[in-house]
Amino acid sequence: MTTYEQTDRNRIRRLPARASYNAETIYPIIDEALICHVGFVADGQPFVIPTIHARMGDAIVLHGAKASRLLKYAATGEPLCITCTIVDGLVLARSVFHHSMNYRSAVIFGRERLLEEYDEKWAALEAITEHVLPGRWTDTRQPNEIEMNATSVVLVEIDEATAKVRTGPPGDDEEEYALPIWAGVLPTPIAPGAPVDDPRLGEEIDVPGYVEAYWRK
Amino acid sequence: MTTYEQTDRNRIRRLPARASYNAETIYPIIDEALICHVGFVADGQPFVIPTIHARMGDAIVLHGAKASRLLKYAATGEPLCITCTIVDGLVLARSVFHHSMNYRSAVIFGRERLLEEYDEKWAALEAITEHVLPGRWTDTRQPNEIEMNATSVVLVEIDEATAKVRTGPPGDDEEEYALPIWAGVLPTPIAPGAPVDDPRLGEEIDVPGYVEAYWRK
Repeated sequence: MTTYEQTDRNRIRRLPARASYNAETIYPIIDEALICHVGFVADGQPFVIPTIHARMGDAIVLHGAKASRLLKYAATGEPLCITCTIVDGLVLARSVFHHSMNYRSAVIFGRERLLEEYDEKWAALEAITEHVLPGRWTDTRQPNEIEMNATSVVLVEIDEATAKVRTGPPGDDEEEYALPIWAGVLPTPIAPGAPVDDPRLGEEIDVPGYVEAYWRK
Repeated sequence: MTTYEQTDRNRIRRLPARASYNAETIYPIIDEALICHVGFVADGQPFVIPTIHARMGDAIVLHGAKASRLLKYAATGEPLCITCTIVDGLVLARSVFHHSMNYRSAVIFGRERLLEEYDEKWAALEAITEHVLPGRWTDTRQPNEIEMNATSVVLVEIDEATAKVRTGPPGDDEEEYALPIWAGVLPTPIAPGAPVDDPRLGEEIDVPGYVEAYWRK
């Protein structure tokens, strides 16, 4: 799989031992993150917008209404930054200084282009739906032509990317392990609750298995 | 409480009914979000970095190592964007088009300045620790002078901010409620798992109550 070049833009300066430039590490983070945060610049001002996404090969697709600021920006060809972050747990050390989090993050640089072809847009919308909830696409009423026209889809080829990952227990200074302070990790997973039926749901309709079994690592 | 001015920068264009410019709505989102994503611009390139934060009155504080790109950026006085996002659930409609998420997000604009005063830095580090895990600050070995010197803290006065919130069931087109498709909401809370003791934890040390009882809305 791809190993991304290390450049001044994507090189990790702080704690480089936690960094990876390999698609093998980066892609599963993109795939597992429920949402991403997209950064773009307009008139020198940075904007950071949460949105859903999907990875298609070496690219990321995003969608939205034509009127959205993010989608309008697509036409400019200016650089984007897309960041996916999963917080796995609070790392509680004996000293405040060594507190941390266990996390997996991927920072991706690229430029977006609008997808114009009907089939490309269709495939991207399927990928985004399946990214959020595998099994949902074939179980729903799929987009009609009016809806397809109202939806913009952009594709961002991944030019450069970096993952940063921390796992494991806290690392205190050696002399502090004897302190009478609880230390360890508190896991912080997304844990889906019981599905809530739409108030207007027909009585004969059961919750599908892929909803009941939903989990994100 | 503060109501932020609506400007070209923070005005919500898409689904303005979901928007709020009031601190009453915005501040609890900042407080509840475990982490934020900070956007800044360097040489025209946007960067989006996940980090922890805390709100102190009408400002947000961030911390990090002096060497980090984000903290170095503090000196420039250039504008930042800080986004806090909480995903409350997947909104599963009958049509793909009306799928959505229930979420609370806050987008904040401001400029950062480095905190130089020892007492200001101390208060900010306490706020950040307590933001992540209330009760932790007084239960740990607090920062010493070497650690204080190694840590940079920046404060971002909130110049403009917006919240966007979606709640409730899906909204399908009227004629589609009869479709035999399950629709509803799948909640996606952060649900802390059982605390994992540090492998080197003394046997007589119990998990503190504030760790056992940890929850984020």
